[in-house]
Amino acid sequence: MTELAPPMVHPDPEAGARVAADDRAHVFHSWSAQAKIAPMPIAAASGSYFWDFEGKRYLDFASQLVNVNIGYQHPKLVAAIQEAAARQCTIAPSFADESRSEAARMIAERAPEGLEKVFFTNGGAEATENAMRMARLHTGRHKILTTYRSYHGATAGSILATGEPRRWASEPGAPGFVHFWGPYPFRSAFHSTSVEEECERALQHLRDTVMVEGPQTIAAVMLETVVGTNGILVPPDGYLAGVREICDEHGILYIADEVMAGFGRCGEWFAVDRWGVTPDLVCFAKGVNSGYVPLGGVILSEAVAATFAERPYPGGLTYSGHPLACASAVASMRIFEEEGILEHVRTMADTVIGPRLAQLAADHPSVGEARGLGMFWALDLVKDTTTHEALVPYNASGDAAAPMAELMAACKAEGLWPMTHFNRLHVVPPCTTSAEELTEGLDILDRALAVADRYVTG
Amino acid sequence: MTELAPPMVHPDPEAGARVAADDRAHVFHSWSAQAKIAPMPIAAASGSYFWDFEGKRYLDFASQLVNVNIGYQHPKLVAAIQEAAARQCTIAPSFADESRSEAARMIAERAPEGLEKVFFTNGGAEATENAMRMARLHTGRHKILTTYRSYHGATAGSILATGEPRRWASEPGAPGFVHFWGPYPFRSAFHSTSVEEECERALQHLRDTVMVEGPQTIAAVMLETVVGTNGILVPPDGYLAGVREICDEHGILYIADEVMAGFGRCGEWFAVDRWGVTPDLVCFAKGVNSGYVPLGGVILSEAVAATFAERPYPGGLTYSGHPLACASAVASMRIFEEEGILEHVRTMADTVIGPRLAQLAADHPSVGEARGLGMFWALDLVKDTTTHEALVPYNASGDAAAPMAELMAACKAEGLWPMTHFNRLHVVPPCTTSAEELTEGLDILDRALAVADRYVTG
Ligand SMILES: Cc1ncc(COP(=O)(O)O)c(C=O)c1O
Ligand SMILES: Cc1ncc(COP(=O)(O)O)c(C=O)c1O
Repeated sequence: MTELAPPMVHPDPEAGARVAADDRAHVFHSWSAQAKIAPMPIAAASGSYFWDFEGKRYLDFASQLVNVNIGYQHPKLVAAIQEAAARQCTIAPSFADESRSEAARMIAERAPEGLEKVFFTNGGAEATENAMRMARLHTGRHKILTTYRSYHGATAGSILATGEPRRWASEPGAPGFVHFWGPYPFRSAFHSTSVEEECERALQHLRDTVMVEGPQTIAAVMLETVVGTNGILVPPDGYLAGVREICDEHGILYIADEVMAGFGRCGEWFAVDRWGVTPDLVCFAKGVNSGYVPLGGVILSEAVAATFAERPYPGGLTYSGHPLACASAVASMRIFEEEGILEHVRTMADTVIGPRLAQLAADHPSVGEARGLGMFWALDLVKDTTTHEALVPYNASGDAAAPMAELMAACKAEGLWPMTHFNRLHVVPPCTTSAEELTEGLDILDRALAVADRYVTG
Repeated sequence: MTELAPPMVHPDPEAGARVAADDRAHVFHSWSAQAKIAPMPIAAASGSYFWDFEGKRYLDFASQLVNVNIGYQHPKLVAAIQEAAARQCTIAPSFADESRSEAARMIAERAPEGLEKVFFTNGGAEATENAMRMARLHTGRHKILTTYRSYHGATAGSILATGEPRRWASEPGAPGFVHFWGPYPFRSAFHSTSVEEECERALQHLRDTVMVEGPQTIAAVMLETVVGTNGILVPPDGYLAGVREICDEHGILYIADEVMAGFGRCGEWFAVDRWGVTPDLVCFAKGVNSGYVPLGGVILSEAVAATFAERPYPGGLTYSGHPLACASAVASMRIFEEEGILEHVRTMADTVIGPRLAQLAADHPSVGEARGLGMFWALDLVKDTTTHEALVPYNASGDAAAPMAELMAACKAEGLWPMTHFNRLHVVPPCTTSAEELTEGLDILDRALAVADRYVTG
């Protein structure tokens, strides 16, 4: 790992107040009731940390929105962006560009065998939108199957594919989106009593869903390889291979949404590499360049690409294959390899995060389950250790979500910035976070969990 | 204008061949039949020009996809991006960030009175998607009215709003998108005989459409202030004010899609400034930072923003308010002001482009009409000077589009890169293009139009 000199952050509350004032007056924030938020101004960020304008430092266990895989302000990546800016900031999609060509080649080389072509977008939502369009046109079928407990983006199509409450306000929208249940042993939809049984029953459920929806109406099954925001749900061994088989049997495409799980998060270039399966389309964003410049995309199998060899692909965007974004992806992939970041992620999972979270689960009654892989972990918090009743209800807000808000506050008070969602606390630090930093954060978490333990009633 | 030293472009066909080979092997291109294209590799770009790897120079009359308003590689803008990259590349939407706050304030200050809050996106499609979502939730109504001959993006919602053939492959999609006819005096849908009559009849047509669709079902009318890709259709004086009035009468929101028309293209910050109308929502992208870093957004009226004061806005994206993108927008707005680019655009329109295109229309039978404003012009090419039959049919491709392909080739042969669409040639150079450069390009165009003239039959 590159050692980063921490930036000199001089407290400057007045500057922070100015940033906050302009923000409140003029910035309209995602997913928020605008009058109820007080976004914290960030003064600086470096490596695994960021600072507020008071000079307070936070160890980031959220990687912002699980995108800063390489850590903040990686000096080599910043330098690469600066060089690329001097060379070529922007060129339209219809031309060929050196950074774009190189990024596409490098991504294809790292992707599973047979995935050879890259359609670039600006982010994750446009990636899933285009993957769904490709699947529909390739198969001539209409329906898209996705799981409950999934997030695929917030444009008109991707939000309907999404299997969680953020979809509700955009319904009814369009027909053709069908949700089914994925495997989740700790809260099984199938009354299973083992991981193997969960896998088997989840596959049977998908097979049954395909049967009753009509295979010849289904263009694609789209899955987060490891479900991210909705729980770090790691698929049981055999599940993804089973999905691949069901798809093949019926000429259905298998889309892997690896916007969050890909590019290092699971200790692999692509999370599917863990299970050796090859989807027809892979969506990526976030980790591809850690969001230093907006970038996402879809990797296509040769078969899907061939559908659009002679007939035009009816989709596009002004910044498809943006040179500056592509240059940053090239640099990021190189740095990952030079610094052995994938190996680091796997080592940290096996030697630091995994063991310590298992210990937290043993020590804290509120921790119903610790699960994950790579730098991609969740504590599933419960109120009742026997029934697994969640610490706060599904989609809780306000008073009902107080236990999670208190837990979050306890972490922040000690300088740890966690990610929480519903009844879960996610441990998703930058992939470059060191063992010492991880231990620092996990120690804080250990103490903070006392807050959650107090809500355990059974 | 900043004078740019042209980059030293040494011919390097081998490097170009490598870029092209990787491109063909691995880049999947927007809107294209992948086996039928041979994207030209671009070696360098500066100011109003770009170069291929043979060292051939092109004067850009397309501004790539009408986004490089400030010209290529503006040294101050590049420097600002480099500085911003060193400071802060990425911060999630839930925080406050200095560049984001400043960009939002500067955009709001330049926007029409009463438009105070900015929701940032990565590009144009996400801007129109979110504007439509805001309008639906604000009004509690479902339908979106847009014009035939419009383009609003290619995600699931924005492509259905689009009023041209790129929509067809994504239909049926979702209900609730209604298309009507906008004003287009040269090819009137209303059999009008003057611009005033066209304006009156187009407003009557909208009024009638609202009546028969049911005003209480309509969330918004979304209009490109000046229709871009589909013809540089400048609204007659009074049309936009009339639309505003119809909307107000029925509690319908008026969304201005200024992704292409805004930020300098029409010689104003916002194209609506030309007509003094204030929409409820304004979509922007492209010119806001000339696409040096992907950025777009929606500017909200206080009334629409207030709808989401206490209840959460159900939309978002990982890179909303991306710091590097916002920093480039701040720098671009400053440069526009320091260099008087808006004034330059107006002067060039009045003294160079407008008069010369009028002369081309007089001299060339194939030019049915020259129209536009700012750096935003079109030649509407005809086969028949009396009937105005278009030089090539609507949505023509292959042999049917040959006259346009030949015209394009004639321009390129002389080092001019124009934009063509259907039967039109658009003159949409960077807003920084000098009088000499414009004249250089218009001279080439003058000669190339001989190709089109040969197809005129009546
Ligand atoms: C799995 C997954 N897909 C898609 C998206 C949407 O990406 P974006 O926010 O860049 O549009 C996200 C964002 O969190 C995601 O986690
Ligand atoms: C008027 C208008 N709206 C929306 C868009 C879509 O923008 P983007 O390609 O950035 O998604 C465009 C793109 O050309 C446009 O011209």
